[in-house]
Amino acid sequence: MNNFLVFQSDFGLVDGAVSAMEGVAFGISKDLNVRHLTHEISKFNTFEASYRLYQTIQYWPEGTVFVSVVDPGVGSDRLSVVAKTVTGHYVVTPDNGTLTHIAKKIGIVAVREIDEATNRLKNSDASYTFHGRDVYAYTGARLASSTISFEEVGPEIDVNSVKCLPTFKTIYEDDTLTGQIDIFDVRYGSLWSSISFEDFKKLNIKLGEYANVCIYNGDKKVCDLNMLYGRSFADVSVGSPILYMNSVNHMAVAINQGSFAEAHKIGVGYPWKITIKALTK
Amino acid sequence: MNNFLVFQSDFGLVDGAVSAMEGVAFGISKDLNVRHLTHEISKFNTFEASYRLYQTIQYWPEGTVFVSVVDPGVGSDRLSVVAKTVTGHYVVTPDNGTLTHIAKKIGIVAVREIDEATNRLKNSDASYTFHGRDVYAYTGARLASSTISFEEVGPEIDVNSVKCLPTFKTIYEDDTLTGQIDIFDVRYGSLWSSISFEDFKKLNIKLGEYANVCIYNGDKKVCDLNMLYGRSFADVSVGSPILYMNSVNHMAVAINQGSFAEAHKIGVGYPWKITIKALTK
Amino acid sequence: MNNFLVFQSDFGLVDGAVSAMEGVAFGISKDLNVRHLTHEISKFNTFEASYRLYQTIQYWPEGTVFVSVVDPGVGSDRLSVVAKTVTGHYVVTPDNGTLTHIAKKIGIVAVREIDEATNRLKNSDASYTFHGRDVYAYTGARLASSTISFEEVGPEIDVNSVKCLPTFKTIYEDDTLTGQIDIFDVRYGSLWSSISFEDFKKLNIKLGEYANVCIYNGDKKVCDLNMLYGRSFADVSVGSPILYMNSVNHMAVAINQGSFAEAHKIGVGYPWKITIKALTK
Repeated sequence: MNNFLVFQSDFGLVDGAVSAMEGVAFGISKDLNVRHLTHEISKFNTFEASYRLYQTIQYWPEGTVFVSVVDPGVGSDRLSVVAKTVTGHYVVTPDNGTLTHIAKKIGIVAVREIDEATNRLKNSDASYTFHGRDVYAYTGARLASSTISFEEVGPEIDVNSVKCLPTFKTIYEDDTLTGQIDIFDVRYGSLWSSISFEDFKKLNIKLGEYANVCIYNGDKKVCDLNMLYGRSFADVSVGSPILYMNSVNHMAVAINQGSFAEAHKIGVGYPWKITIKALTK
Repeated sequence: MNNFLVFQSDFGLVDGAVSAMEGVAFGISKDLNVRHLTHEISKFNTFEASYRLYQTIQYWPEGTVFVSVVDPGVGSDRLSVVAKTVTGHYVVTPDNGTLTHIAKKIGIVAVREIDEATNRLKNSDASYTFHGRDVYAYTGARLASSTISFEEVGPEIDVNSVKCLPTFKTIYEDDTLTGQIDIFDVRYGSLWSSISFEDFKKLNIKLGEYANVCIYNGDKKVCDLNMLYGRSFADVSVGSPILYMNSVNHMAVAINQGSFAEAHKIGVGYPWKITIKALTK
Repeated sequence: MNNFLVFQSDFGLVDGAVSAMEGVAFGISKDLNVRHLTHEISKFNTFEASYRLYQTIQYWPEGTVFVSVVDPGVGSDRLSVVAKTVTGHYVVTPDNGTLTHIAKKIGIVAVREIDEATNRLKNSDASYTFHGRDVYAYTGARLASSTISFEEVGPEIDVNSVKCLPTFKTIYEDDTLTGQIDIFDVRYGSLWSSISFEDFKKLNIKLGEYANVCIYNGDKKVCDLNMLYGRSFADVSVGSPILYMNSVNHMAVAINQGSFAEAHKIGVGYPWKITIKALTK
């Protein structure tokens, strides 16, 4: 562990929840370097929480401890766990799907259930609604500061028992790739698809060539466009669409200095699909 | 003092105001650990500023210095003060009601008026609109870094002279508790009432039993619901209301994975009242 | 350099972009003190990015490194540069107008183009859309931590070649000052004009006297008000307009505890003009 503790939640930044978690962490060790991934995960959206961890975790130093609190089941019998990744990062979270992308795309080597008999803020037993403060921040801070070891988190559980949300496996048939709209590059309205750059290579489309991109809401086609496959937004004129590889090596669609999502009223997750194929030459 | 300096304001995070305050603080000492409670206090809302301090301050290490700048009277004759709490925390703030909950629920042991002759950013005398930067951040940073002692802030003033906003004292009559809607758990739309768990015990309602909860906007009843008294949201089905003790040991009302405030169009503060009584068995 | 690294962007805080930049920075040096100016610059608005740097940079210790990523031209041939200011601060940014106010109002002593052959995150060559992470955060962190010197950023380029956006030069004729609405004090809706306090002195208006202020949207006058010239908002009653010197020593217009911008539907930049003149006595 390296004293870095990174928080994520769906709490927003308008009240005192995040600050209470920080205070608890610094109560464990004043040497912690507490950082924030985002606290603007959509309410109760564990898929989004999972994706944001996947998007960022690999850029952080080995030994960094992440605490993710998107917890619609607080007070239910969902488990509280700490996962150790292949890359030597730790994620403290309710086991509710938040580990999906980490498990499938990065890899988890061990998972332990948090033993609340030892790993819970003193005198917080009467409160049942803020495990982010009383259990997750507390345990994350103790782990990040090496106050406890990973083994002292609690009993080991089966890595394969981690709860994973369904993800879309890219389909390749009739010279067409089909994927899902996983998430937005929120501020800019770009669509990030589930189609990896590796899969995209099967289409043999070269930089500067055009591709056909369709977006479907269930069975309804809401968009059917031919667009340049380019490196970056500036490869097309302002207002034009572009197909490109995004910053996590997946295929994405944008409008240069515009919002593709707004322009075409696109959503994310099931039932939004995207197809890509080469133009007939 | 422990080098921790925690800022709160109604400035928002969209411009350079908070960063200018940070810069001034680090100009005093590069060893400060500058943190942020929230900068999204509703504009000029000193009650909310007071509540957020109360909600978080007790989770921070002793000796932490808080700087709260919600200052509708900037440039008037309102005092600038530093309060020392029973718990060994410090709050730098205009004396405009921001200390209400700290004074009434935690306790203040001493208050000093900031002497701007010594405690003001050099060469800032021409500016009269940004005391957050020129007086509060500057003084808070000097105090947190032990550049000055609490005594060097300025002359001591009477603890009982601290300006307090009116708060609602829980009424218990006809087997019914009456309180105020103090504030929201903003992101989730839960109502946090002024009724403490201690007072709630008078109703002798057990976990798993039902209570009647009414909400009033002045004389108008806007909500009359029987709901489970539970530990946490997951004790009821998604979409159902629940009465529970919140994370600061007061009674609260929520909808599991919904927003009670939005569903019933509830507001906070005067004239919003809440009543709780046991169901006749 | 002093280990302080301050980020600014138009990324918002809702996804993982800012955290990925932080992770890259801490991968360079765990001793960096990473701070944030704002990530809520209006999308692609380089004038606003420039102004926010100008508003804050002078309050930070000498040697602080700023990284500003408002980059509508990512992937085009716009240069990536590091500017060193007269005040000993450094700004890492695309050369797209972000340095305008620094160049005109503070002064730049040297500029170097970032040599991406050495100053680019390892194995990031395939990604062309997130220079904030792969080039700017990486280079800023290496500079702030003294891993590289300013000279090792890349080849020096002509200070006068820095791209500057047009700014409005105050006009003084017929006893009237004419300026531009540069920007808002966003949360409060106050208008910050391009008219400096130095220029304002020409009108010889004393504190407590009244001035005539007009606002124009192109040729259309949208506001013609006589208002007090005061020190701060509390000099007028709640709801009244006031002319004052703002926290960066320029003339500004506000409504005490109201929003001037909303009340009069005012915008910023071209073609919004403001005139100030003394009332005939």
